[in-house]
Amino acid sequence: MWLVSLALIMFATPLVAQEPLPSWNDGPARQAVVDFVRKVTTEGGPDYVTPGARIAVFDNDGTLWTEWPVYTQLQFALDRVKALAPKHPEWRKKQPFRAALDGDVKTLAAGGAKELMALMAVTHAGQTQEEFRAEVEDWLAKARHGAFKARYDALVYRPMLELLGYLRANQFKTYIVTGGGVEFVRTFAERAYGVPPEQVVGSTIETRFEHADGKPVLRRKPKIVFVDDKEGKPVAIDTHIGRRPIAAFGNSDGDYEMLEWTTAGPGPRLGMIVRHDDAGREASYDRATPIGRLDKALDAADERHWTVISMKKDWKTIFVTPPSP
Amino acid sequence: MWLVSLALIMFATPLVAQEPLPSWNDGPARQAVVDFVRKVTTEGGPDYVTPGARIAVFDNDGTLWTEWPVYTQLQFALDRVKALAPKHPEWRKKQPFRAALDGDVKTLAAGGAKELMALMAVTHAGQTQEEFRAEVEDWLAKARHGAFKARYDALVYRPMLELLGYLRANQFKTYIVTGGGVEFVRTFAERAYGVPPEQVVGSTIETRFEHADGKPVLRRKPKIVFVDDKEGKPVAIDTHIGRRPIAAFGNSDGDYEMLEWTTAGPGPRLGMIVRHDDAGREASYDRATPIGRLDKALDAADERHWTVISMKKDWKTIFVTPPSP
Repeated sequence: MWLVSLALIMFATPLVAQEPLPSWNDGPARQAVVDFVRKVTTEGGPDYVTPGARIAVFDNDGTLWTEWPVYTQLQFALDRVKALAPKHPEWRKKQPFRAALDGDVKTLAAGGAKELMALMAVTHAGQTQEEFRAEVEDWLAKARHGAFKARYDALVYRPMLELLGYLRANQFKTYIVTGGGVEFVRTFAERAYGVPPEQVVGSTIETRFEHADGKPVLRRKPKIVFVDDKEGKPVAIDTHIGRRPIAAFGNSDGDYEMLEWTTAGPGPRLGMIVRHDDAGREASYDRATPIGRLDKALDAADERHWTVISMKKDWKTIFVTPPSP
Repeated sequence: MWLVSLALIMFATPLVAQEPLPSWNDGPARQAVVDFVRKVTTEGGPDYVTPGARIAVFDNDGTLWTEWPVYTQLQFALDRVKALAPKHPEWRKKQPFRAALDGDVKTLAAGGAKELMALMAVTHAGQTQEEFRAEVEDWLAKARHGAFKARYDALVYRPMLELLGYLRANQFKTYIVTGGGVEFVRTFAERAYGVPPEQVVGSTIETRFEHADGKPVLRRKPKIVFVDDKEGKPVAIDTHIGRRPIAAFGNSDGDYEMLEWTTAGPGPRLGMIVRHDDAGREASYDRATPIGRLDKALDAADERHWTVISMKKDWKTIFVTPPSP
């Protein structure tokens, strides 16, 4: 009898402890995830998917961590301009640097691609990849989000972190497919999300193999090679992963094509959209925002069977570390 | 007593059966592999490397399968031109198609990049990725190597296949980093080498996200985006994998920078070069060949502590399936 009890303790307890997605309220979003995972992992079932083909892709900004009120990487660039400004007194009179120093995001946004490239050139290029990574690490350790008074990498959504873990526990390979710079996101992805560098796909700038002091280095150049956004996302998924995911998670129109490409494949598919509708705990924005605009994808969700996640209704908690008041 | 015997059978037998690298002769090459793996997997040892950082990269042509007398993908392109020729009578009078139809590799090689691009445009572009993969599959099933009278994907080196398996059994993640087209190699890499699509890095042509009959497709365009050779290899490794490998395997000067980048990192490193010195069982070529030239890397091997693998001396068997006489 004690053997049976022991077996019950050994096997039953972990199962209870592992009730998936504890930060999710019961509702259609949580149910969609659990149903999908059950279907694709049921051996012998009609929807079974072999572990190797269980590829799930996640947008980063606004899907895994906050993008409000500006993308974290843009904030990094602005802070870098400020840090470098003492060596460049001419920036006070020259756009886009002046706008960056004033934190004038509106002027920056109006400036267009050429002006943003000028910022990129001084903040994201010239270094080696190792130096750049160290700069990002250093910034993440010191910078604090203006509204939430927390480290940026503490502004990760707890329910999404649970979702990543739940999928991995079911032998999914989880990828980040971000419009952000791949090297920027790789700096914290393993620590913050458990996603190793090789499972981060993102926008890239040119890097060149050079030598410094007789040692080989990879030097960052001020030229954007690939923008991993919109129709770029399925292309990058194909280049890096080489097979179509069976699940995709996004939050904006920039994820539309990734969701479309993923869910147009045969067999069971899961497409989900995180909707920022929680002004009390984070922010509320969709069709009218320049950052993280959700318009076309929201209109298509019903017809395409993409499940909209309401942060307000579906999530018990927002952040991994609740921000200070 | 029988319990002890049972334990011996259960645990000892697999160990004996798993004697690593059975197709390798005892010698410095095999020893270098075994020593390196022991060092990086010895927990608590000075050279221990965590499993996540055990990244090994392999060139494909001439390192994992034969590239002699021409790269397999070039043979595929020539055969495609022949297959498409009945619809293009003008090709008989037009270079580089005429040379392709005549199998005149010398003229093709002399033609340079522009002429090779013309061949690429008709053989490697225009289709969707799925259509292209089906064309490659179909070709691999039917084509036979002229000299070895075998399927091309049977001309995989058995000792290298054992090496891939041995590294994976020791929690290495094995990547192919090929100058060949990524989509071409992905078609057979999982079946032939046990390397899944997401662990194949290669040269890329432009692909675009389009719609055909209302469905999203990825369409191949006749424009080379990235050449994964020479100094391109460390760049591609950085873009796709995001960390420096600890072991690299190549066979030509095209792998020089990959070997250099890998072995210049801190801690234990393994760089190895497959040398084609076995005219009896495969082929003998190094400094004087236009395909798979090994010159600069051979000169540097000693100084850089790269181990040269002699196919003749180090390998008991060459191919997974011994070719017909």
